[in-house]
Amino acid sequence: MIQYLTTHPWKIVEEGFQPRHHRSSESIFSIGNGRFGQRANHEETYTGPTLQGSYVAGIYYPDKTRVGWWKNGYPEYFAKVLNSINWIGIRVWIDGEELDLAVCSTNNFRRELDMQKGLLVRSFDVTTISGKQARIESIRFCSMADYETAVIRYSVTPLNFDGAIRFTPYLDGDVHNHDSNYDEKFWEPVSSDTTPGGGSVVCRTKKTAFEVAASMQLDVLLDGASQSVSYAEFSRDFYSENNLEIEVKTNQTTQLMKYVGLVSSLNYSTAELKSAAERAALRAKTFGFDKMMSAQVEAWSNIWEMADIQIVGDDEAQQAIRFNIFHLNQTYTGEDSRLNIGPKGFTGEKYGGSTYWDTEAYCIPFYMSTKNQEVARQLLVYRHNQLGKAIENAEKLGFSNGAALYPMVTMNGEECHNEWEITFEEIHRNGAIAYAIHNYIRYTDDHSYLAEYGIDVLTGIARFWAQRVHWSEAKGMYVMHGVTGPNEYENNVNNNWYTSYIARWCMRYAMETLAYVKHHDAQAYTTKTTALKFNEAAEIKQWQHIIDNLFLGKKEGSNIFLQQDGFLDKELRSASSLNQAERPINQHWSWDRILRSCFIKQADVLQGIYFFEEDFDMETIRENFDYYEPMTVHESSLSPCVHSILAAKLGYEEKAYEMYMRTSRLDLDDYNHEAHEGLHITSMAGTWMSIVQGFGGMRVENGELTFNPMLPKKWKGFSFKVMFRGEVKTLKVGEV
Amino acid sequence: MIQYLTTHPWKIVEEGFQPRHHRSSESIFSIGNGRFGQRANHEETYTGPTLQGSYVAGIYYPDKTRVGWWKNGYPEYFAKVLNSINWIGIRVWIDGEELDLAVCSTNNFRRELDMQKGLLVRSFDVTTISGKQARIESIRFCSMADYETAVIRYSVTPLNFDGAIRFTPYLDGDVHNHDSNYDEKFWEPVSSDTTPGGGSVVCRTKKTAFEVAASMQLDVLLDGASQSVSYAEFSRDFYSENNLEIEVKTNQTTQLMKYVGLVSSLNYSTAELKSAAERAALRAKTFGFDKMMSAQVEAWSNIWEMADIQIVGDDEAQQAIRFNIFHLNQTYTGEDSRLNIGPKGFTGEKYGGSTYWDTEAYCIPFYMSTKNQEVARQLLVYRHNQLGKAIENAEKLGFSNGAALYPMVTMNGEECHNEWEITFEEIHRNGAIAYAIHNYIRYTDDHSYLAEYGIDVLTGIARFWAQRVHWSEAKGMYVMHGVTGPNEYENNVNNNWYTSYIARWCMRYAMETLAYVKHHDAQAYTTKTTALKFNEAAEIKQWQHIIDNLFLGKKEGSNIFLQQDGFLDKELRSASSLNQAERPINQHWSWDRILRSCFIKQADVLQGIYFFEEDFDMETIRENFDYYEPMTVHESSLSPCVHSILAAKLGYEEKAYEMYMRTSRLDLDDYNHEAHEGLHITSMAGTWMSIVQGFGGMRVENGELTFNPMLPKKWKGFSFKVMFRGEVKTLKVGEV
Repeated sequence: MIQYLTTHPWKIVEEGFQPRHHRSSESIFSIGNGRFGQRANHEETYTGPTLQGSYVAGIYYPDKTRVGWWKNGYPEYFAKVLNSINWIGIRVWIDGEELDLAVCSTNNFRRELDMQKGLLVRSFDVTTISGKQARIESIRFCSMADYETAVIRYSVTPLNFDGAIRFTPYLDGDVHNHDSNYDEKFWEPVSSDTTPGGGSVVCRTKKTAFEVAASMQLDVLLDGASQSVSYAEFSRDFYSENNLEIEVKTNQTTQLMKYVGLVSSLNYSTAELKSAAERAALRAKTFGFDKMMSAQVEAWSNIWEMADIQIVGDDEAQQAIRFNIFHLNQTYTGEDSRLNIGPKGFTGEKYGGSTYWDTEAYCIPFYMSTKNQEVARQLLVYRHNQLGKAIENAEKLGFSNGAALYPMVTMNGEECHNEWEITFEEIHRNGAIAYAIHNYIRYTDDHSYLAEYGIDVLTGIARFWAQRVHWSEAKGMYVMHGVTGPNEYENNVNNNWYTSYIARWCMRYAMETLAYVKHHDAQAYTTKTTALKFNEAAEIKQWQHIIDNLFLGKKEGSNIFLQQDGFLDKELRSASSLNQAERPINQHWSWDRILRSCFIKQADVLQGIYFFEEDFDMETIRENFDYYEPMTVHESSLSPCVHSILAAKLGYEEKAYEMYMRTSRLDLDDYNHEAHEGLHITSMAGTWMSIVQGFGGMRVENGELTFNPMLPKKWKGFSFKVMFRGEVKTLKVGEV
Repeated sequence: MIQYLTTHPWKIVEEGFQPRHHRSSESIFSIGNGRFGQRANHEETYTGPTLQGSYVAGIYYPDKTRVGWWKNGYPEYFAKVLNSINWIGIRVWIDGEELDLAVCSTNNFRRELDMQKGLLVRSFDVTTISGKQARIESIRFCSMADYETAVIRYSVTPLNFDGAIRFTPYLDGDVHNHDSNYDEKFWEPVSSDTTPGGGSVVCRTKKTAFEVAASMQLDVLLDGASQSVSYAEFSRDFYSENNLEIEVKTNQTTQLMKYVGLVSSLNYSTAELKSAAERAALRAKTFGFDKMMSAQVEAWSNIWEMADIQIVGDDEAQQAIRFNIFHLNQTYTGEDSRLNIGPKGFTGEKYGGSTYWDTEAYCIPFYMSTKNQEVARQLLVYRHNQLGKAIENAEKLGFSNGAALYPMVTMNGEECHNEWEITFEEIHRNGAIAYAIHNYIRYTDDHSYLAEYGIDVLTGIARFWAQRVHWSEAKGMYVMHGVTGPNEYENNVNNNWYTSYIARWCMRYAMETLAYVKHHDAQAYTTKTTALKFNEAAEIKQWQHIIDNLFLGKKEGSNIFLQQDGFLDKELRSASSLNQAERPINQHWSWDRILRSCFIKQADVLQGIYFFEEDFDMETIRENFDYYEPMTVHESSLSPCVHSILAAKLGYEEKAYEMYMRTSRLDLDDYNHEAHEGLHITSMAGTWMSIVQGFGGMRVENGELTFNPMLPKKWKGFSFKVMFRGEVKTLKVGEV
């Protein structure tokens, strides 16, 4: 754990500049609006360690795959989240000395993410090398009211001198991706120009030919009064800047307003892209900083109205849940069916791609309950749109007859991952995609989805499982070999219980869905099954035979489901017996040692029990939790939330609270020493679940929403709202 | 299979130029002398597909590792075999038209590798675009009599014109490696110069700073008479050339002699390197082509005297065994303990590194029997030299107390491989290294090796195994999890029988060795065990407990040893049921499909039975062979030889012959469609074994050499010699 931030119910606060943690702060204080996002890089020059990151939704680059030894079926490329035009940059000279926090010293430094209002504010007193002192304040935000705009207000006040303040606000598309397999540059310049007090840069991605345009409009105020200044302009490929200087007296405040328009070719033709960015920047300037800020506060207020969770009596927990909800809303607004929820959102590059099974397993419940149900439907349709690619993907691996294997990581439906033990074997992801359909329909009652879309996806997935198992003569049953479960600390195992269980469930659910559509919409059934070339008699018979005869391991004389064949042969020990200096083990142990150990990265058997809890009695759930949780090292961000929910269900209040704090403060307290790479956005939805489904005990039972709340000892109370079938339901527990 | 070469007992012959197979021919017709080697690239310009390759022994580059996702314990780099200075290049213009076999047409083309004499000869009639015809002949060889020299005699005879023949012989160090992870250049220039009729180039590898120097001396003859010609010289970084032109009449033959000196910083200081190369080139020129050739023929005659295997009545088999023996001798002469036997020798880049377990498992018997026993000892000492690195390597993976894990691939003792399932799990290699010591001592009776070197290596290896197993409460036995056996078509399996069996044997052999040294040389024992910090009581007790309680799987009611846990759950089918269009499966199937299948890449259980055949009765050997061989796809070059030897032992004459032909003609007939990447040098020693140990039935029993020969039906007879404890033994079977 690394703790250096101040606790506050609505804010994240860094008091005193901490260069050592700056890259983590850059992640934690990130801002965005679903359309684009920005790490909390300093506006002014910073020569210390930093990870620059300006990201535009849906803009990616197919980076040539890097593998040790090529294996058949590996994808040619990995679609990467792209660092894009730097639109925040403002170089600042204080009476001739450049402001750089790696060089100058600061006092009263405060960085604040105001989550209620959606603002990033930074203020400090700086002393230059020569001893000049000035007060600096910057406020910036990505507008939630006008997705194409952002604004920065950068203020400088000399404290002990009269002199010149010089600003060089700029746009810079000459950026690189930290995560580039071959150190390639991903961008090429399209155009750049500048006008007095303005400028724009347009860049194009190589290979994918996406274009992004940024435009800026400037304004300068002295002690609140607009100034007419003379601008010196300069531009080159990728780059546009303005230079301006203003003579000020001690205690006079100069404010530079940088209004930014940022658009991409996802929403405009390339011909109109530049002018769209320019229009957006002008629109922002015309609107002005104050009105933009009011609109921002109002937009966030509307979001919080529905999405907020209040926790009374525990500011750490309160701050954490809002931090999670804030970032989820910054990352995905649900308005564009081409987008999805990247594991790092707009806070870092790692993991590339945008879509993992995280979306289905963790994110859909959050968006389903806090947004209009169309948003969740949109996320399901996203996968339907990519069904053709999933079928192609399965064909590449030797499957046929329309079997579909969804990718582990994707941007456009094609697989991007390239480690055989994941790409070819972590196939349980297919199950989560089917489960999300069930989850959505159970919650929304929107059965129309099945005939329209669901039937296609579920049939493709069921066909995959039917081919992926094989008959074992030795066991006289079907077995599933060569898989990697959610616990990626086991690779290439046989009969992973979770995978087999969800596979069997998928076949059953596909059969139910086919029967449902046949019964309720015979015409749709005929159309769909004809298109799918569905051989009803043979395929149903095959699925049923597998359902009836699929091997699922169990520990003799117990209700413990065996994570995989041979699990009991391991040296079974508790994670608490591990040397603390060797944790997280994935940063200290060689891979074979991890694989040979019993330690579990994230819920595996317990993930199945979480998904299908109605299949198991309380004692079975308890036995499995008591058996597996102690061996779990929770080194995936997706681990603690599931354990928190199950612990709450089992009445393990302390464990539920520990796991809640771990999931909700994962990045704030940097449990796994990786916040500098970006935040764990998708697991933030798991945090939400651990309150709503965990402490709130929310379930859908027979079409009704039920709650079975538990109040952690440390809390006086908590409350949240959910949207359910068009109605807002509020749960209040304890004093709230 | 791809067959386009002519069968001949002493020669490899390509009749008619086959551009489609040119890259394979470049591998097959490679020449070398243990110190350097050269693919059979054309001397003149060739704009068709080619893989240029000039390799100098021991010169490597640490290429930055390329992996998908980094795992702890992966090495930072992969030591690569390096394409070095091109010393064969001669551009040729026929009356102004450049000779290029991708452009000009040929008649009577013949490429011939004379294995008896160690010569590469190429001759053809060429017709230029404008219709000029000329006879071309080139002869070249890497001298086996003077390891620093090589020579080319390049002849041109106009057939239908009088005109100018122009030559541009050159040296070119501006080469690239086909196998470069980041398309880096591995070389930087040191110097290049030229003189009339001579020139030299010196290059240095980046990072490793090895230097290689090549020098050339030229001579021109017209109809056999030396000519005085005027040379036009040119040099630049990396490059040195001479230009000369001679006016000739129809049917007059111009011969260009290119004498080459080639040396590296392995044998000279960098200060004297260039002059050493120049001296070597001048020495060659002074000696002259004819005398160099006589010396070459004599040197090869001496090699063949001891190493030849004669097969009567089957030219295909005869050609093949000589092809194998020829290449083994070209690759490694046993005179330099810093060198080893790379899997592709000097015929290609693939697999980088130089040393695999192939050396111990396959190559040592060949060198032990056909060379002075010092050569085999040298190969063992090579590993002793690298013991410190093997201990470091084990430490990186979490082992302690001097446990040693030898690398899968290495140049200097450091691991170069970077796929976890191999690097961390294909640990049986450690067993082969111990086995080679046993094999050497059994054969040579050189017990002095144990106290001097063997004890260190064997203790390190035994300690590794003792830590690599763990106690299974469930089984009440030791188990070994997370291994990859010799059959790399299974990854991360538990209780691979071969690995566990050889591990147990290693612990036992280490104990015997310690006891032997203690008994025969108490002082050495004390010195060694003190240095090793050997805790006799505790360690011996631990090893014995593991030996007595190590799990080894067996199929119930049979003598079949189980390749690994869960093997019987697979769909068990014969490789003969595979679709021919899908073979080799590693070029057609996705990796998960290969892993899930029962198909075996190379001997696994049978490798253990081969190594330890005295432990098993004939029925057990037969049962296992009959069970596993049909599932074996032999997609490793190391597979057929072991099966051939076992088949011969079992009296399966047809299978033994089939496997012999497959191993011996693997590259000549290109079974696995990969000869273009280079030849399978180390498996060539397996070919030798399949005659000597297979059809010859040679074994060492109680210090005596015994033979139990079998004559394949197709053969009239065969004979070979082996050196055994200072004596040459000859086996003749049938008419010979």
